[in-house]
Amino acid sequence: MKKIIDLKNYEIRTDLAIESISNNVNKQTEDIDGIKVTTMKLNKEEASITNKKEGTYITIEFDDATDYNNKEKLKEVFALHIKKLLKQLNIDDDASALIIGLGNDKSTPDSLGPITIDNIVVTSHLFKIGNVSDGFRCVSAIAPGVMGQTGIETSDLIKSIVEAENPAFLIVIDALASQALERVNKTIQITDAGINPGSGIGNKRKEINKEVIGKPVIAIGVPTVVDAVTIVSDTINYMYKHFSYTKKHLHSPANKLSFGNPNYLKKDIQITKEDRENLMGLVGMLNDVDVRKLIYEVLSPIGYNLMVTPKEVDFIMEKLGDVIGNGLNRALHHNIENL
Amino acid sequence: MKKIIDLKNYEIRTDLAIESISNNVNKQTEDIDGIKVTTMKLNKEEASITNKKEGTYITIEFDDATDYNNKEKLKEVFALHIKKLLKQLNIDDDASALIIGLGNDKSTPDSLGPITIDNIVVTSHLFKIGNVSDGFRCVSAIAPGVMGQTGIETSDLIKSIVEAENPAFLIVIDALASQALERVNKTIQITDAGINPGSGIGNKRKEINKEVIGKPVIAIGVPTVVDAVTIVSDTINYMYKHFSYTKKHLHSPANKLSFGNPNYLKKDIQITKEDRENLMGLVGMLNDVDVRKLIYEVLSPIGYNLMVTPKEVDFIMEKLGDVIGNGLNRALHHNIENL
Amino acid sequence: MKKIIDLKNYEIRTDLAIESISNNVNKQTEDIDGIKVTTMKLNKEEASITNKKEGTYITIEFDDATDYNNKEKLKEVFALHIKKLLKQLNIDDDASALIIGLGNDKSTPDSLGPITIDNIVVTSHLFKIGNVSDGFRCVSAIAPGVMGQTGIETSDLIKSIVEAENPAFLIVIDALASQALERVNKTIQITDAGINPGSGIGNKRKEINKEVIGKPVIAIGVPTVVDAVTIVSDTINYMYKHFSYTKKHLHSPANKLSFGNPNYLKKDIQITKEDRENLMGLVGMLNDVDVRKLIYEVLSPIGYNLMVTPKEVDFIMEKLGDVIGNGLNRALHHNIENL
Amino acid sequence: MKKIIDLKNYEIRTDLAIESISNNVNKQTEDIDGIKVTTMKLNKEEASITNKKEGTYITIEFDDATDYNNKEKLKEVFALHIKKLLKQLNIDDDASALIIGLGNDKSTPDSLGPITIDNIVVTSHLFKIGNVSDGFRCVSAIAPGVMGQTGIETSDLIKSIVEAENPAFLIVIDALASQALERVNKTIQITDAGINPGSGIGNKRKEINKEVIGKPVIAIGVPTVVDAVTIVSDTINYMYKHFSYTKKHLHSPANKLSFGNPNYLKKDIQITKEDRENLMGLVGMLNDVDVRKLIYEVLSPIGYNLMVTPKEVDFIMEKLGDVIGNGLNRALHHNIENL
Repeated sequence: MKKIIDLKNYEIRTDLAIESISNNVNKQTEDIDGIKVTTMKLNKEEASITNKKEGTYITIEFDDATDYNNKEKLKEVFALHIKKLLKQLNIDDDASALIIGLGNDKSTPDSLGPITIDNIVVTSHLFKIGNVSDGFRCVSAIAPGVMGQTGIETSDLIKSIVEAENPAFLIVIDALASQALERVNKTIQITDAGINPGSGIGNKRKEINKEVIGKPVIAIGVPTVVDAVTIVSDTINYMYKHFSYTKKHLHSPANKLSFGNPNYLKKDIQITKEDRENLMGLVGMLNDVDVRKLIYEVLSPIGYNLMVTPKEVDFIMEKLGDVIGNGLNRALHHNIENL
Repeated sequence: MKKIIDLKNYEIRTDLAIESISNNVNKQTEDIDGIKVTTMKLNKEEASITNKKEGTYITIEFDDATDYNNKEKLKEVFALHIKKLLKQLNIDDDASALIIGLGNDKSTPDSLGPITIDNIVVTSHLFKIGNVSDGFRCVSAIAPGVMGQTGIETSDLIKSIVEAENPAFLIVIDALASQALERVNKTIQITDAGINPGSGIGNKRKEINKEVIGKPVIAIGVPTVVDAVTIVSDTINYMYKHFSYTKKHLHSPANKLSFGNPNYLKKDIQITKEDRENLMGLVGMLNDVDVRKLIYEVLSPIGYNLMVTPKEVDFIMEKLGDVIGNGLNRALHHNIENL
Repeated sequence: MKKIIDLKNYEIRTDLAIESISNNVNKQTEDIDGIKVTTMKLNKEEASITNKKEGTYITIEFDDATDYNNKEKLKEVFALHIKKLLKQLNIDDDASALIIGLGNDKSTPDSLGPITIDNIVVTSHLFKIGNVSDGFRCVSAIAPGVMGQTGIETSDLIKSIVEAENPAFLIVIDALASQALERVNKTIQITDAGINPGSGIGNKRKEINKEVIGKPVIAIGVPTVVDAVTIVSDTINYMYKHFSYTKKHLHSPANKLSFGNPNYLKKDIQITKEDRENLMGLVGMLNDVDVRKLIYEVLSPIGYNLMVTPKEVDFIMEKLGDVIGNGLNRALHHNIENL
Repeated sequence: MKKIIDLKNYEIRTDLAIESISNNVNKQTEDIDGIKVTTMKLNKEEASITNKKEGTYITIEFDDATDYNNKEKLKEVFALHIKKLLKQLNIDDDASALIIGLGNDKSTPDSLGPITIDNIVVTSHLFKIGNVSDGFRCVSAIAPGVMGQTGIETSDLIKSIVEAENPAFLIVIDALASQALERVNKTIQITDAGINPGSGIGNKRKEINKEVIGKPVIAIGVPTVVDAVTIVSDTINYMYKHFSYTKKHLHSPANKLSFGNPNYLKKDIQITKEDRENLMGLVGMLNDVDVRKLIYEVLSPIGYNLMVTPKEVDFIMEKLGDVIGNGLNRALHHNIENL
């Protein structure tokens, strides 16, 4: 039977290290007021195994950036970890920064980079005329657009801008694709391992990293879109958990008192091989990767492996652009405390 | 076993008549250059069975409104059917129209109404001063915003605007939710049966129809969002078809010569009960409605029944706002041929 | 000679009471950190003399709303005077407000009303479902567009919305034309005497005031445009002052030490009839009103009495929309202190 | 007396050659349906006298680009002259173009460059993958922002982009300041003599021209702003003409029959020295340059030499961005006829 399901062609790609890296890697996790921060350092060997680049990966997970208080807390946590990473990379307080907002300002789910740039306090031109008070770093910023708008390879464009401006280091912001429904608009990844512009949405572009650019690169990514394959395969996994949980708890007296549906994800549930096969037949026999490949094979030829974004995307991009833009202002300029 | 799956709470709602109406209803279908137009007239009895309102429903299905030629063809077909419906409703060539663009101009997937209004050739103020050439109808237009922006019940707002302007008839445009992945941004529904502002996305508002407003109402809706439940349940159905198709054709010599994956949807495939249960176990035993209910029960308590929109939403809204806005201009004003 | 200059046709119109009212009227002036607030109460007689409506006029004059600190001070002063006026009008803390942003959101110099509405904390829909914490007033808000967009007389539209929502009072925001170069984007007028939508820019529309609407109306106006006639006639007056000042101070020893040009406007300068005629010949013999009429007669037939706005209009509208929108939030909702 | 008026500091600057070049230069003028095109070729000597660069200057003057028919005619004329200039510069049909839209997309009067870029049909990335039909040129395009947004000197940025993309020639679009009220939004200048980004509004930036960039540069400029000095000095000149015209025609019998005000600008009027002094006293004795300097000295120290733009700026920028963007598409790509 398995022969019928021919699993090829679909390679799972993600820019979120936390999605692709196993539990063996050394991780540090902290929880600050409901915001979960995971720091991983991948050495060369670990990186090559997981098909990621060597480097530090900081993943900030949060619930809802559109709530004012959450947003302000998140901004604080984000700024703190940017500062930490700058220190770890031995980047001085007066080293000049070039901030690059990747993406298309005319396409809302891809506009996080350009929106962030709008919020950056730019000072480089003032430094050139000696007109800057203490506590400000030399910062320049640009949103170079996407290749479909400019016709120019984005990494070539950035390399040329770096030559013109000669900053001490780069910060690059981009919207990513997620391989997990639960991370869309709810995760910020910070890394010194570089970024592949447009990589998350299936376009292979040239890498932007320290080797290519010749300067340290801090990449900041937020998953804003997810494909239908991911939605379906994640849901199938939730179905297993829901099935196992319901089976176990249906007749428990405690359950009778509960109102509404329980958040079964937060429970410790054992899913047996038998449960999977019972609930899902042949599909239940496949491992996660093969389920994704199967769904890809089903949706792709009929044109329905849509890349989608939550309908509130306009509001969320505005809030995340505030968090990242003003978080960077705080981390880069000593004199800015409350933007 | 079935007892475990408790199917409640989830009511399938859709504003697209074509999605909820069975094949028994009298339908006329035509195909114009790849654009499929289905016209249904529901009488009182048929309407009550399907939980829709009595009236005419014209559904225009198309492939890609972002291609220039397709867009212009679609605009022509759309204008033609608006004209037909006006005639059927005995609305004169000089009857005054009030066009209302529902939705939130600050939220891209919900901005189709306001974008359409921007494209309308408004003449009502010119009629008042007698300053209009022949071939133009008296047209006014407004985008009243959504209740979250104004605090005011939208149908109350519209009723009061109708009293102020006293038009002969209303045209109302809104973005809808779809219950089928394949219809998102690919269907325009025109009906004289009224509309429920925000109904598609789960907010119960007061109806806008002839009984409530006291004037004929032509409602134009385009599904721009879809929920995760729909994506998953549609995909499960595609999996059945793919499974049956693959099983049958895998060893056919013809298949060996084909490159790429076939569009199995266009084939005539028999899906047996056995196939469903083989592929999907217990899930395969459920009917479509119960599968949707199950997925809803799985996704809803953990907050992942996201309402989503394709990531190209900005470009598509712009094009559809052109089709509907300038299509209405052509249908309403005799003198406008090529907007 | 004077006969040649035929002064007709040009009526000076302004919505800023402070521009049209003589010094005889009872005025109170205060200066708060460089922000000048003038409060005038016109009785029936005074109003009819000056062609204004009876009522209270509060004029707030400031230097630069784009500076962060100035903006925050201005917001405070503005909110304070809205609160005072509400008290004076015996409007209770729990009286419901309908806020109307007049103007065209697609035309930057006319977009102050719509931008302000975007910043309003709307609660009316929450009150209807009983879901509001203490300290919030029932507030609804709408930007109805201009007649060129909707085809509908704006005052009719507003009357009908008032009937639908039945608020206890109205607040109406609009961009005005100024009759003084120095007031453009530097003055906020608050009045209970009503407003004439579009009046400042030469379009006669129906009045929005207590008599027409049947509810107290607080009108907030900011002059954002000025015509060429005003720029020229203001400059001619500055030329007189500059001429008189320069003549007097040119040979003063103190002047020899000064660097740059002095701000002669802040000096007490006597301009003699002789100075005017010396500098400006026949033009110098005309009074201010006749100079304006002359300039109008010169510019109008050749199409150059342009209505203009400072080129920084986008930034200024954003800041003033913050001042007025969030100033209103503070004045209307007790619980909001720091938006 | 003249001593009192101290004329210094104010240098008249303009990017419109037609404004600064005397009548001695060799000019060709044609009139196409009310659109006036003036072509001047300045040799080195002529250029140095007039403080302009050597090269060809094509000035297109028109009445109203917001009228649909005018706009389409203008687009045709503009495309034609771009083609002519390309031929004159020996730029081949398949030479690759880089189009640069200078200016700030967040400031409407300065957004002409970025709006134009949005309308450009970009093909460079398709050429790299060999995916372009005949009749298309290799075109890339970018809107690099202004120094206040990026912190980077714009000419440095452009030089670096040219190095990355290596086009055969450049086309640069910018909004300019005008030194004549009558040219604002009513003139397009095309030149091969280069451009100074932001020069029109008083910011000295590095030049963008063939010497600096190493490639032919075609600069396209439209004056969108004007300063108060210009408005006043232009009006004073109109006052002279109006005065002389009125004096002469007041008692003519023909005039008694005329309704409304005549367009005296279109008449041949002699202004005598005596008329000037009669009407304007000491001011009437000054030449044009000294009048400007005087007005500058009057307005500048009190902060009222505002740079202004007509209040319809949003609509006009949209139309001119269509004319220039789609005019360039027609001129650059053979296959595009009717955008």
